[in-house]
Amino acid sequence: MVHAGDPRRVARALARLDAVHIAGYLDNFEPHEQDLVFQALPAERRPHVLAAMRYEVAADLIGRRAPEEAAGLLGDLQEDDAADILGRVDEARLREILAHYDVEDAHALEELMAYGERTAGGIMSPDVFSIHHDVTIAEATRMVQTADDLPQHVHYLYVVDEHDRLVGVIGLRQLVRSKPDMPIHAVMTTELVSVTAETDQEKVAELASRYDLVGIPVVDDQRRLLGVVTIDDILDVVREEATEDILKMAGAGQMLVETRNFSASFRARMPWLLAAAAGGLLVAASLQGFEGALQAVPALALFMPVVAGMGGNVGTQSSTIVVRGLAVGYVETNRLGRLVLREVALGASLGALYGVGIAVAAPFLGATSSDPVHLGAVITLGMMGSMMIAAAVGTSVPLLMNRLNIDPAVATGPFVTTSVDILGLLFYFWLATVLLGISG
Amino acid sequence: MVHAGDPRRVARALARLDAVHIAGYLDNFEPHEQDLVFQALPAERRPHVLAAMRYEVAADLIGRRAPEEAAGLLGDLQEDDAADILGRVDEARLREILAHYDVEDAHALEELMAYGERTAGGIMSPDVFSIHHDVTIAEATRMVQTADDLPQHVHYLYVVDEHDRLVGVIGLRQLVRSKPDMPIHAVMTTELVSVTAETDQEKVAELASRYDLVGIPVVDDQRRLLGVVTIDDILDVVREEATEDILKMAGAGQMLVETRNFSASFRARMPWLLAAAAGGLLVAASLQGFEGALQAVPALALFMPVVAGMGGNVGTQSSTIVVRGLAVGYVETNRLGRLVLREVALGASLGALYGVGIAVAAPFLGATSSDPVHLGAVITLGMMGSMMIAAAVGTSVPLLMNRLNIDPAVATGPFVTTSVDILGLLFYFWLATVLLGISG
Repeated sequence: MVHAGDPRRVARALARLDAVHIAGYLDNFEPHEQDLVFQALPAERRPHVLAAMRYEVAADLIGRRAPEEAAGLLGDLQEDDAADILGRVDEARLREILAHYDVEDAHALEELMAYGERTAGGIMSPDVFSIHHDVTIAEATRMVQTADDLPQHVHYLYVVDEHDRLVGVIGLRQLVRSKPDMPIHAVMTTELVSVTAETDQEKVAELASRYDLVGIPVVDDQRRLLGVVTIDDILDVVREEATEDILKMAGAGQMLVETRNFSASFRARMPWLLAAAAGGLLVAASLQGFEGALQAVPALALFMPVVAGMGGNVGTQSSTIVVRGLAVGYVETNRLGRLVLREVALGASLGALYGVGIAVAAPFLGATSSDPVHLGAVITLGMMGSMMIAAAVGTSVPLLMNRLNIDPAVATGPFVTTSVDILGLLFYFWLATVLLGISG
Repeated sequence: MVHAGDPRRVARALARLDAVHIAGYLDNFEPHEQDLVFQALPAERRPHVLAAMRYEVAADLIGRRAPEEAAGLLGDLQEDDAADILGRVDEARLREILAHYDVEDAHALEELMAYGERTAGGIMSPDVFSIHHDVTIAEATRMVQTADDLPQHVHYLYVVDEHDRLVGVIGLRQLVRSKPDMPIHAVMTTELVSVTAETDQEKVAELASRYDLVGIPVVDDQRRLLGVVTIDDILDVVREEATEDILKMAGAGQMLVETRNFSASFRARMPWLLAAAAGGLLVAASLQGFEGALQAVPALALFMPVVAGMGGNVGTQSSTIVVRGLAVGYVETNRLGRLVLREVALGASLGALYGVGIAVAAPFLGATSSDPVHLGAVITLGMMGSMMIAAAVGTSVPLLMNRLNIDPAVATGPFVTTSVDILGLLFYFWLATVLLGISG
């Protein structure tokens, strides 16, 4: 329908869809299709659709509108959403758009954009409803009733003292159920979880999840209220961080880049292959001494892929379990030695099981050797060794990275498989020279 | 401290920690340590700690208490949490515990446990506050004020008609701000998102995230209200599903099993290695025809790991991007062919880049060959081929699985690396026989 480009049919179709669905389509459309659909939307629906789109795509779309129109559209969004989109618009365009804001609003937006993208400040909404601790329940209720700038997702009221410092919180439900003449400070909860603007967004999500909160207040070093991180943003963070960890572990970049953009994909993925390529060269160099053995028993080469592959698989299992376990707090970081030993024992058992199976099957597949028993032993012990090395590397590398405060998810996958290729195959060939009595 | 086993010191330490922290420690303790700490807790704190623990660990702990005490502890939890824990207690123990409930409560719990674990029914709370649509705002407010069984996390009131059918929703904030004499049906929101008890939990999480909701009502086929899924459970679902996807992709099981339990780990990981082992045997069998080539040019074996490894890495990148993209809705499933072509082109470009690099470096590493130029060509083209195959397999396998309604995350990793090992290395050796003029 969009391809046909009939604006009236597009408009009729849009009237039947909600903003979230339209945004979902726009996220996957080509730029000219996005513009056509956006144009066909009634003006009052545009901000809703924009707010529901992915920030990167919304920023591109906004960048293609006239600066004045862009400023108008963004002005109808919540401030934190507007800042998230504007933060992804290029610098020159950003200046042009901000020029259409009044000075104070532009300043507020710039302040929001100044916070680190992955911090509480970067995801918080500065619209937060706070009340003085001496106010009564009846007065507070009246304020909620008459406020015309009440933020969209209010579930808690934050209570501040005369220095604007956060001293407590009261839920709407508590407000409704308390006696009208009580002062707020007598009914509010004073044990509350708060974060600073610099707190990592992952930490904020963890707190919300552990304490079952739908909003977490953000305070400065004087405990003055700066804003609130709401649960809808926290949900996005949890998804985003999971995606990031998955991609990093696979060495596939840090975020899902536009799948349409070839050169962006190329740039995101190229560097991660460097480890594997350098590792591959190292493997070739280190196995070189065994050319003689290969010439004597070429069947050795046939089992290189399974020795390296099984090791790589076990290493990936170990490192994945450790990396994800660290992310969700399942790993006892104080018991490193025990964990590594346990994984190595697992690698040895799994290696023995599969190694014997493959060694027994080998002759039937026609792997020729003058000495099938010793070749079988080389395969079995080689697989066990490779899988033990893999388990040790896969477990200890992310644990050590975590201790050194390096993100354990970064390229764990390629690193583990490459080091297993080198160490596992070296061990395999060393075994071959010893057990088959051939010189390297 | 727990090791020393001094109950008084443990009790003093516990007094300084909140329930969530204590639960976090308990999750990682040995059973006898858990019992010791739990015993040292004041009785009124025990349900809070229990509710914050991981369900599996809480179920084990509950299973070790006397049935009567267990029933008492669980009676203080929210019904959905109690059902989640009880659902993990073994059958005989469960009967003993339920015998201490009154018949009606036991029945309600059993009903909750009967819903699929990963469905809206399985994660919903049956405690939901609903009001009749003819009630006025003032009356509804009074009901909220006086209800003594108000669920813990009430942010919305659900509105039902005379047949108990869900017809609308009103937020507490809207309730506070509306005129007292208005009937609820005049101010409620009638466009509301609801799910059925059978809806997959992943779908529920997606809806909450897209529509920024802190609760989603669950209805039966008559639209009668069964319960509500609250945001805290949704947050847990998002984390759990991400963990599951990560582990499945790596072939490391479906959930993070107790890292202390050796045999559970062995059982969870063994089957996933079967694909790699079977694949390894297939590789050995299919490369067998090239033993002659290996004897003539043993240097070919040195570059097998890098050809297979680079392919495996690219394949993992492609499949990870597609699997995660499908999970978060970034992938245009209607453009399968284009996506595969693009990934194959990426594989070819990356393969050309790294292939030339490795071929040029090969002679310096001392890879001896009577024909270094042709060996270089075999390495470069072999890597390009292997990486193109990997990109094609890595992209199309999860996309096809998705079309066939099979979870694309299941063992994509091992499957992709194994098929790349086979196809990539076959291509590499075929190239060698052609370009180096040796017979296979």
